[in-house]
Amino acid sequence: MARGPPAELGQAALGPMSKVSASISVSVDGYVAGPNQSVESPLGEGGEGLHEWMTALRAWRERHGLEGGGVNASTDVVAQSMANVGAEIMGRGKFGGGPGPWDDDAWQGWWGEDPPFHMPVFVLTHHEREPLTLSDTTFTFVTDGIQAALEQAREAAPGKDVLIGGGADVINQYLAAGLVDELELHVAPVLLGGGARLFEGVGPEVRVEQVRVVEAPGVTHLNYRVAG
Amino acid sequence: MARGPPAELGQAALGPMSKVSASISVSVDGYVAGPNQSVESPLGEGGEGLHEWMTALRAWRERHGLEGGGVNASTDVVAQSMANVGAEIMGRGKFGGGPGPWDDDAWQGWWGEDPPFHMPVFVLTHHEREPLTLSDTTFTFVTDGIQAALEQAREAAPGKDVLIGGGADVINQYLAAGLVDELELHVAPVLLGGGARLFEGVGPEVRVEQVRVVEAPGVTHLNYRVAG
Repeated sequence: MARGPPAELGQAALGPMSKVSASISVSVDGYVAGPNQSVESPLGEGGEGLHEWMTALRAWRERHGLEGGGVNASTDVVAQSMANVGAEIMGRGKFGGGPGPWDDDAWQGWWGEDPPFHMPVFVLTHHEREPLTLSDTTFTFVTDGIQAALEQAREAAPGKDVLIGGGADVINQYLAAGLVDELELHVAPVLLGGGARLFEGVGPEVRVEQVRVVEAPGVTHLNYRVAG
Repeated sequence: MARGPPAELGQAALGPMSKVSASISVSVDGYVAGPNQSVESPLGEGGEGLHEWMTALRAWRERHGLEGGGVNASTDVVAQSMANVGAEIMGRGKFGGGPGPWDDDAWQGWWGEDPPFHMPVFVLTHHEREPLTLSDTTFTFVTDGIQAALEQAREAAPGKDVLIGGGADVINQYLAAGLVDELELHVAPVLLGGGARLFEGVGPEVRVEQVRVVEAPGVTHLNYRVAG
């Protein structure tokens, strides 16, 4: 029977398949932002408590042009999880908030003139807009859904991993669609009592396998392999 | 100014205050039982996946009169968390299910003739009933609320810790009332997509502090100090 080469040969010729990772800070009660998110309060009430472990890291502060900070077990976790990432996908909330700011295409998001991404970023939105380049980060606005955004991210970063960087709704959509290979949860010791819930609409057909756990100051890093 | 002795002296005279601990297995998406719990399926759909780490332990199996099982990092976690426990409080679901079985006071719960508790157990319920003794476990049925159950448990176990053993609704009530000192979550690598949600109705005024993390086969043990 004449056939083409086995699939695994074709895959090997293309190099290792790039991975899709979702990574996000989450409260003990499962929220990635607190209640009443707004342009004035993008993380919602109490939401800054989710990120204290990260903003205390020297590596994070350097990336954001800030002095100080420390080195601890989280430093390696973050470095490893970013090591092979070549593109990020995010929701419009992470880029720059809700309807208000988006009415004006001059709005450049939360991240200032030198955004900390330093790679192609694909922003899921319903608002069509030309790409925006700030320093070495280009934001491309994708209006035709998560699958299209993933294809564009993969093309922009051949052989590299794609990071799904949040918010909750974006990660939930990718999880529910079976498109995530790896889930990294940074569990912060805070209860928010409401807000943006991770895993909303994600069903039991998504299977996770515990890969590694790291205890660090003010956070626990849980890494799971995901199968749709 | 004449005063009584400082409060801390009075406390020292009484010995160390006993601790109230809540301990429960929870899915990565925050459920302690799956959807559609019933008398036939007390853990709900997929809920048995929450407890596989535990039922694989030799210590657990011995306590339940079963052979086999292994020893791993979870063995110490369970032993330490139970070391000073003198009484347990649980909901009627953990004792023995919903309205059906309870219509008959001959119903002796899920746990057989030699329940694995071996200590006084206080069951929160709206159904008045005489205490039930099975082997060395006495179940006392408490109809006047969580504060009354805690007082009875403390009286039954002077100087010992009180364990809030679930389900979710019971733990949530104690957390919301600020009555829990320590929270132990056994995070199992499973998504349930629905069911009994831990932290439902528990607000941000409950503060948690990360105490220790243990990675074990098929589970992560997270221990938090709780302040109401």
